[in-house]
Amino acid sequence: MVEHPLLAALLRGERRALARAITLVESTQPADLAQADQLLTQALPHSGGALRLGISGVPGVGKSTFIEAFGLVAIEHGRRVAVLAIDPSSGVSGGSILGDKTRMERLAVHEAAFIRPTPSSGVLGGVAGRTREAMLLCEAAGYDLLLVETVGVGQSETTVAAMTDLLLLLQLPNAGDDLQAIKRGVMEIADLVAVNKADLDPAAARRAAFQLGAGLGHRGPAHEVSALTGEGIAALWSAIEVRAQAQRDSGERERLRREQNVAWMGEAVREGLSIRFDGDTRVSARLPDILGRVESGQLPPPAAARLLLAAFFEDKS
Amino acid sequence: MVEHPLLAALLRGERRALARAITLVESTQPADLAQADQLLTQALPHSGGALRLGISGVPGVGKSTFIEAFGLVAIEHGRRVAVLAIDPSSGVSGGSILGDKTRMERLAVHEAAFIRPTPSSGVLGGVAGRTREAMLLCEAAGYDLLLVETVGVGQSETTVAAMTDLLLLLQLPNAGDDLQAIKRGVMEIADLVAVNKADLDPAAARRAAFQLGAGLGHRGPAHEVSALTGEGIAALWSAIEVRAQAQRDSGERERLRREQNVAWMGEAVREGLSIRFDGDTRVSARLPDILGRVESGQLPPPAAARLLLAAFFEDKS
Repeated sequence: MVEHPLLAALLRGERRALARAITLVESTQPADLAQADQLLTQALPHSGGALRLGISGVPGVGKSTFIEAFGLVAIEHGRRVAVLAIDPSSGVSGGSILGDKTRMERLAVHEAAFIRPTPSSGVLGGVAGRTREAMLLCEAAGYDLLLVETVGVGQSETTVAAMTDLLLLLQLPNAGDDLQAIKRGVMEIADLVAVNKADLDPAAARRAAFQLGAGLGHRGPAHEVSALTGEGIAALWSAIEVRAQAQRDSGERERLRREQNVAWMGEAVREGLSIRFDGDTRVSARLPDILGRVESGQLPPPAAARLLLAAFFEDKS
Repeated sequence: MVEHPLLAALLRGERRALARAITLVESTQPADLAQADQLLTQALPHSGGALRLGISGVPGVGKSTFIEAFGLVAIEHGRRVAVLAIDPSSGVSGGSILGDKTRMERLAVHEAAFIRPTPSSGVLGGVAGRTREAMLLCEAAGYDLLLVETVGVGQSETTVAAMTDLLLLLQLPNAGDDLQAIKRGVMEIADLVAVNKADLDPAAARRAAFQLGAGLGHRGPAHEVSALTGEGIAALWSAIEVRAQAQRDSGERERLRREQNVAWMGEAVREGLSIRFDGDTRVSARLPDILGRVESGQLPPPAAARLLLAAFFEDKS
C-alpha cells in the first residue's frame, strides 16, 4: 500500500499534519473514506502507546482550568499532551465543549500540547464522533498523554470509559446531594476522583473527599485539588502515573487496548448499518407509505420497522 | 386478523392481562414477535389518549416519594395512573429503578394504579427497553396518566423526552452548583421543574425555584413541592393539567404523538439491524479473523467494521 501523503509529517509530530489528518477522518465525504482508512492503517502501528485519561465532571466543576493546570504539570514531567473532547450535549444544544477559544490559553500555545475542539454536532459516529480516530492519530504523532474530556452526564461517561485507560471524575466540594447524585453509574466506572476548587472551602473539600473515597473503596482515596492555585495537582499526577505504570506492568493496558478497539469496531458497525439503511432505495420507496400509517396511528412503530427491514433485506435469504 | 387472546381482557383494564401483555412485548423469543405485533396492532386504536409525563431527577431527589404523592393526587382527580421506568444505569450496574419492591407502597396497592418495574438489563431496545410498547398497552388498558420515570443522566432524559408529552424535572433545594450542572442539556428539554423537599429548607427551595424559573423562561415558573408533606403537589398537578389541555387544544398533542411514533420506529429499525447483523452467518464466519487482527492492532477498527459490513451486504448490489 502506497504511503499516505500525510503519514511522514504526522509521524514527525507536525501539528499541522495532525490537524489535517483529524479533519480527514472526521470528513463524511465518501471520497475521503478510503484515504482515512489508508492513513489510519499506516498510523496504527505507531499508536496505542499513550496514557488515555478520561476526565469527567459536571459543568461548573472547572474542567478547563483543571486540564490546563494538569496538562502543564504533565508537560513538566516530559509528556506531550493532546486534549480531545466528547460532547454529549451536541445532540441537544449543538454546543461544543472545546468550542470556546479562550479556554486553556497557556496550554494551547505550548509546543508540547495539542488541543482539538469537538467537531460540530451532526458529525457521524454517535456520541464519540471521531474521537477514537483522533486519539489514534495523536498517538502516532507522538503525544503520550491523551486527555479526553466529557461533561458529566451518564452516557458520555460510559462512552469515554470505553475508550480510555483511566477515568478521572472531578467533583465539587459541596458534598451531600451531589454525592447522592453520583452514587449510581458514574462512581461505578470512575478510577479516580478529585475534588476540585478545594481552595474555596478546604473543610468541605476534605469532607467530600472523605465520603467520595469511601465510595471508591480500593480505588480511593479521593484527591483534593485546586486547579486555580495548583494545589494537589502534582500529587494527583504522580498517583495517576503510578496507576498507569501498574496497568502496563500487569498487562491490564494491553487488555484495555483490545477492549477499546473491539468496542470501537462495534460502534463503527452500527454506524455503517444506519448509513446503508438510510441510503437504501427500497427503504426510501416504502418509507412514505409506512411513515404515513405510523403517523396516522394505523401501524405500530415496531411493525413498521419490521416492514422497512423486510424491504431492506429483500434480497437476503 | 384473529383477535389476540389477551386483547379483550386488556381492553377491560384487567391488571393481570396488562402485566402478561407487557411481558409478551418484552419477550426476546422470536416466536413471541408475531404475537406481540398482533397484540400491539389491535391495541393501537385504543391507545394514545393518556397524558404521557416524563419525570426525571438525580438519585436522592425523592422521585419515588414524589411519584407516589403525585399519583395519589391524580387518582383523586379521577385518573388511572401507570408508572413505568427507564433505567439508563442498567448498562453499567444492572440496577433497576423500580426494582425495590418497597417503593410506592400506597400507590402500588391502589386499584387505579399500575406499577411496572423496569425489565432486567440486557433486554433489547436500548435505553428505552420496551417502555414504549408498555405505554401503548397501558393506554389500551384505560390508564390515562403515564408516569415515565428516569434517573437524571443526560441520554435517558433525551430518550424519555422523545416518548412523553411533558418532561418534569425534579430538583433539590440546594441551588448553585446543581444549577450549573443542569444548565446544559436537561434544562433545555424540561417542560416543568419542581424543587422537591421544600420542607427541608423553604428559603433555599424558594431561591432555587426562582433561579430555575429564570432558566425556564416562558416554561416557568418552577414549582416548590414536598412529596413528604404533600405541599405544592396539588398545585403542580393543576398546572400540569392546564399544560396538557393546552397541548390537546392547540393540536400539539397530535404532533407529539406523530413524533413519538416516528422516533420509536427509528429505534426499532436500529435494533433490528443489529440483531440481523449479529445473527448473520457471513459475519460470524469472518469475525474471528477480523477480530483477531483488530485485537492484535493490525487492523483499524473502522476498517474492520467496513470488512464485516461488506461481508454482511455481499449479496446486496
